[in-house]
Amino acid sequence: MSRTETGSRERIVDATLVLLRRGGLAASGVNSVVAEGKAPKGSVYHYFPGGKTDIVIAALQRNRDITAASLQAHLGSSHPLARRIKAVFKDLAARMSRDGFTSSCAIGAVALDIGADETALRDACAAVMTQWIELVAECLPEFPANKRRAAAEFFISLVEGAQLAARARKTASPIANAEEAFLLYAKAVLG
Amino acid sequence: MSRTETGSRERIVDATLVLLRRGGLAASGVNSVVAEGKAPKGSVYHYFPGGKTDIVIAALQRNRDITAASLQAHLGSSHPLARRIKAVFKDLAARMSRDGFTSSCAIGAVALDIGADETALRDACAAVMTQWIELVAECLPEFPANKRRAAAEFFISLVEGAQLAARARKTASPIANAEEAFLLYAKAVLG
Repeated sequence: MSRTETGSRERIVDATLVLLRRGGLAASGVNSVVAEGKAPKGSVYHYFPGGKTDIVIAALQRNRDITAASLQAHLGSSHPLARRIKAVFKDLAARMSRDGFTSSCAIGAVALDIGADETALRDACAAVMTQWIELVAECLPEFPANKRRAAAEFFISLVEGAQLAARARKTASPIANAEEAFLLYAKAVLG
Repeated sequence: MSRTETGSRERIVDATLVLLRRGGLAASGVNSVVAEGKAPKGSVYHYFPGGKTDIVIAALQRNRDITAASLQAHLGSSHPLARRIKAVFKDLAARMSRDGFTSSCAIGAVALDIGADETALRDACAAVMTQWIELVAECLPEFPANKRRAAAEFFISLVEGAQLAARARKTASPIANAEEAFLLYAKAVLG
């Protein structure tokens, strides 16, 4: 694939991710993707013959990779636990504040939008969340081995819930609150 | 207003709430509401001259009232804290399991779908979340007065995040995990 072709596919996926973060599944129709990505409509069907479902899955996987890299950088560092946790929430608050709390996690938005028959999309959301949980569990070596997965599962639910609350209330307050809550939880588990 | 008229308005609001819980903002168009609520299209505009935004706000307020009554019943009882918290999460897990994890909180779904210019909907979501936080704070008398609001804010974020994760992963596991996490948090705060 030539550099231009790769660039065009990437632009479509990036545009879809922006739209999903802002408005969920309904906001990411092919026409909106074409407009947001400044890509020819033909190229959308060239790269994604399956149409919207395929594009959305590619965007969810892009979301997965971006978030995984960020979690690895902040939570996977060698700093003490409190500092690592704070780095994740600080980054999240900064990102959400920057665009006035108008955009959040695409996995979260899609998870709450998917119909009962949209199995491929739900499976994609489930797979991303499971991968994040496994990554976070690996980044929490302070926790006893048999409590790492529960801590990671809690962490991911909390990060999703805090984003949702921050978005609804247009304030970073739920993110600061979540950071504090996770550290108190860690204190109870680690003693 | 006659009993029939009240019934018709209620049916429209109930139908909208069902649709929002399942598929967010995009799923609750007037045509879908008419089909789901078996209401004449004219009656929708009769009761809600402002159209979709007005209907959605009424449905969000219905969601607020149903959840507030449930929180009050479970969390506002005179049982010990752990039993009250478990009652909330048990009820949530039962409700989500019953429909195969295909429906969740309407406030959450709308919060992640609203565009930057949909101020009335965002304000409605923010108001509901604030009211829930205040209610939960009142239901946590075990917490020191200056920590009740933070605990309530955390509780609401966690309940939203756990629903989102349960929905994405099609399992009640994130709900059981959230219950355990909240109780560990409480242990750290209350000593």
